[in-house]
Order: sequence, then C-alpha cells, then structure tokens
Amino acid sequence: MGDPAGIGGEITIKAWIANHRSGKHPFFLIDDSVRIRKTARLMNVDIPIRSIEKPELAKEVFCQALPILDMNIAEGESGSHASQTVVRSIDRALESVLSGTASAMVTNPINKSTLYDAGFPYPGHTEYLASQTNTKKPAVMMIATPSLRVVPATVHLSLREAIDSLSIDKLVLCTSTTAKALKQDFGITQPRIAIASLNPHAGEQGFLGREEIEIITPAINQLRAAGLNVSGPFAPDTLFYKTARKKYDVIICMYHDQALIPVKTLDFYNGVNITLGLPIVRTSPDHGTAIDIAGTNKANPNSLIAAINAAGQIANKRQDTVNARNRN
Amino acid sequence: MGDPAGIGGEITIKAWIANHRSGKHPFFLIDDSVRIRKTARLMNVDIPIRSIEKPELAKEVFCQALPILDMNIAEGESGSHASQTVVRSIDRALESVLSGTASAMVTNPINKSTLYDAGFPYPGHTEYLASQTNTKKPAVMMIATPSLRVVPATVHLSLREAIDSLSIDKLVLCTSTTAKALKQDFGITQPRIAIASLNPHAGEQGFLGREEIEIITPAINQLRAAGLNVSGPFAPDTLFYKTARKKYDVIICMYHDQALIPVKTLDFYNGVNITLGLPIVRTSPDHGTAIDIAGTNKANPNSLIAAINAAGQIANKRQDTVNARNRN
Repeated sequence: MGDPAGIGGEITIKAWIANHRSGKHPFFLIDDSVRIRKTARLMNVDIPIRSIEKPELAKEVFCQALPILDMNIAEGESGSHASQTVVRSIDRALESVLSGTASAMVTNPINKSTLYDAGFPYPGHTEYLASQTNTKKPAVMMIATPSLRVVPATVHLSLREAIDSLSIDKLVLCTSTTAKALKQDFGITQPRIAIASLNPHAGEQGFLGREEIEIITPAINQLRAAGLNVSGPFAPDTLFYKTARKKYDVIICMYHDQALIPVKTLDFYNGVNITLGLPIVRTSPDHGTAIDIAGTNKANPNSLIAAINAAGQIANKRQDTVNARNRN
Repeated sequence: MGDPAGIGGEITIKAWIANHRSGKHPFFLIDDSVRIRKTARLMNVDIPIRSIEKPELAKEVFCQALPILDMNIAEGESGSHASQTVVRSIDRALESVLSGTASAMVTNPINKSTLYDAGFPYPGHTEYLASQTNTKKPAVMMIATPSLRVVPATVHLSLREAIDSLSIDKLVLCTSTTAKALKQDFGITQPRIAIASLNPHAGEQGFLGREEIEIITPAINQLRAAGLNVSGPFAPDTLFYKTARKKYDVIICMYHDQALIPVKTLDFYNGVNITLGLPIVRTSPDHGTAIDIAGTNKANPNSLIAAINAAGQIANKRQDTVNARNRN
C-alpha cells in the first residue's frame, strides 16, 4: 500500500498494466479497493479491479484484473489514522509471505515522519521487518540497477553520525550478508566485492583521514581471510564509471549519498531497493512517496516494476534451490 | 610540465597532435625538450619538436612543431630534485601569463607528496598561484564537463574535517566567486546556482543533521539577498541526473566526493579543472599523474585537451570584454 497520500496507488496500477499480459510475477495489492478505483478514475485509466478474499486467489485473477486484498480504509481517514492502516498492510503482507501464500513482498514508499508521529518506533520498513521476523544480524539495503549494485554500510543518519558509526564489525557483517545474498539470491558463486573509501583519494595514506587505515582495511583483511573476494578501499570518485564498476558485482559504500549519488545519476528510474539478510524476500522502489505529484498521473512506475520483477526472480531462485535440495 | 614521472609529457604530445592542424588555442610546453623527445620515441610517435627562446615565438611555431620553452633538466634528476624544476616550470608559466606573453596557463598533474617532501609549503597549484598573485579571497575549484559543472566548497580534507570546516562565510564566498566567474568567463549573465545539502535527504528538517538549517540555508538567504539566483539545499542523490542537472549552470557541493563522484561517473575523461577567483586564467586536467601507466602510451589526453581549449576560450572571453570596454 504505502502512503495513501503518495503515488503508490498510481504506480501499482501502471505496474499491473505493464505486467498482467505476460502473467509474469503476478502480484496482489493490499489496499482499499474503493481508494484504488478512485485513483484509477483520477488517472483516467479504465482497468478491471477485483477484491479477493484470500491471497491464494491472486494468481488466477491477475491476468484479468488487478487483485486487491481489501484493507477497507474508512472514507476521510488520513494522517496518523491512515498510518495504522499502512502498518496493518505491511503486517498482512508479511503474514502472507511467512505463511507461504505469497513468495515475496514489495513495499510502496511510506512517509516516515507520519509513521513516527503515529508512534511507529522503527526507522523504516527494513528494521520493522527484521524485528517481526526475529532477524538477529542487521539487515542490509542494496540498491540495484541494470548497470550497478551498491550497498550503503550506513543509511539514515547524518553524515557525521554515519562516520561515527563505522566500525570493523559493521563493515564485516554488512559485507558478509551482501556476499551471502549475492550467492543465494542472485546465483553469483564468488561475488566480486569492491569497498569504497570514506575519505577523498582513499585517504592518501592517512593524510586525508585515518578511517581507511584503522577501519576499512582491517575489515577487508578479515573478509579476505574468510575467503571472500573483496578489494579496496578505493577512491570513491573513480569507482563508479563504466570501466571501473564493470569489474565488481557490488560496491560497498560508507554512507547514503556515496551509494545513492552514482545510482541515481546513472539511472534515476530503474533502481530497486532489495533488503538483504531477512528470511523473507522484500524489495521496494528506490524513491519516496512523491506526494507533490500524486494524483497527476505523472509518476514513473519503472522502479516499482523493477522491484516486483526482482522480488519474483529472487523468490524463484530460492525455490529452485529448495527444489534441488529436495531432489537430492 | 607537471610531474616528470607521470603522463604529462605523453598527453601533451597527444594534445599537440589533436590541436596543431586547426591552430586553435596554440600552446607552448615548459619542459625539458630532451625528455620530451625521449617520451615521443618511447610512444613511437614521430612529431616535430622545436625549442623556443621566448614565449612570443610559440604562436608561429605551433602549426609546424610542438614549441618547448626549455627547462633543461639534467639527466638523472628525479624525485625532490625534479620537484624544484616542476615548481620552476609553474613559475615560468605564471611569469608568461602575468607579462601578457601567454593568455592562460594549463598545469599538468603534479605529485603533491613529492613536492611536500621538497619543502613546497602549499596544498597544491591553486593555493600557490593564489599566493604568488596576491589573491586575497580563496580561489575556488570548478570541475566542468560538457554536461555538468560542479564546485566543491571544501576540497583536500578528510570527510570529518570537510564537515568541520563548513561555514556560512565559506559558502557565501565560494558561491559569490563562482557566480562572478560564470558571468565574466563563461558569459552567463544570471547563473542558475544549486546548492547541495551535506546530509542525506537534505537533512529531513533536522532529523538527519543540522548543517542545512544552521549553515547552508542561512548562506543561501545571504546570497539571494545579494541578488544571486541560488536555490537549495537539495538532496544530493537526486540533484545530478539529467533532468535535474540541466536546470542549473553549476552545483555547489559540500565535499570533494559529492562533486567528483557524479562528474567522473558521467564522464571520466572530459572533465576540466578550472580555478576561479584568480587574476589569471588557469586550468588543468581533472586526473592525477597516473605514474602506473606513464610511458605505456595508454594515457587518454582528452581532459588535457579540454583544459587547453577551456583556457583558450576563457582568455578570449576576457579579451573580448577588454576590447569592448576600450571601444566605449
């Protein structure tokens, strides 16, 4: 569902239009069907919508209509009240995945400050899902586009706090989780992992900062000792152009914008946010609620479509592994 | 000249080959002609080279041969000893520009740690030239490619020091100098200037850092009050993709990699470093000495060629202004 004031409904309708003919990666929407019918009318799009009682019915409905597992938001609900509904939609998605009636969940963007105001005590989806699934190791956010995969080792912190929070353990954990996911979910047997430096010019042997010497290089040494193909720390400005990025399956970044600037500069609309390290498969588009353009039919659905397809592919990959194991 | 152990000689030879037929932006090299002849042989390139006694002769020589104002480095000189020659070549270039016999100077990359070891007390070319020309306001580094111009407000510092060194005054000075240069040297009468935030998501109203509220926004308000077209602070990850960057003539960045990551990711070979705020015109390629590939004929001369052409264009622009003033 995501934030009902945002573009979630619009891009989901567009994603259904893009995907339903092929029947590939069928999905159901957990939302208020009255709201979504209104959104479609506002967009001037005539699509068939069908409320379903159970997730199991989504697969057969998908080719004919957008299946909605109905949330029944009351008319006029908004703000913190709708926030409860938003969280309830996340819970229902999670239940569907945990019970095996859905293979993966995709989350539309939420408005974090609205959720905080409503008493939601988690920084975002990722931490909430980690808590609800009793995940002990920290989950990791990967942003993937067709030409680049990045993992920010620190995420929603000020730049100062991000620097303060870097540690050998954090980098080792984050990189190990990433390596495991690339093997398990992407079928890359020996992932090639680059680690960016924090400071310009990779710190110039300590002249421009000591984090490379004291934190990043020791972490790389530990990861290598554990048999991973990890290299760095590399100067961040020369790590993302075509010839450089093609050498790696993923680049571990030290802070949010070090990862997000190259991704969004290269490919603004096709990035997918994939949560690594959860027992369930979860992806999301890599943009926000875009409340300023909601209702104008301008929202680009590509990131959501890419998120749905990535979720389907990863779920299939995991299922293949289970099947192969059962055959042996 | 730049660092004699680097790629400066090779890319200068390639730049001459690229430019001499058109005679556009003729240049002379301040270097040891014996060394450059050797470099050409090593590259297996047969080009005419002519030592000139005075800069004034460069213009007529340029179409037939690479003109070299000879520095006469003794055979076997290297390391800190060559560093003195490197600095001497900078001095001679500066003299030529100050006396009016050259219109602009272009500096090949130097090895800063070698210069420091030799007792050179400046962080780099820019600060040295500012000191030698009695420039009171700090000079500003702009990196320009055909699709994007960026100015890092802080440069060769660790990321922590860069954050600590931000101030309202620094941002106001840096942005004013940039605006003046865009008018004077690029002919943009009312430059559209964007200012990036330091923290992710532009700080999310203080939740992710306070520098936007305490430093960047007050600086923007001062600059607007002075009549400049300045906007921001903008979230850095959504500022550099095509639709966003086309709206601005320059983007002021808070730290080295925030500026250099998008520039080098988009266009690794055509960036030019232009020093703004000096009385003289000075540009340089936006790469380092590349000692690891020196002598292999692999070095890409595009950034140096772009630097030479940018220097020529800016010098012509300033001359046009002087001519117009004299006519009135």
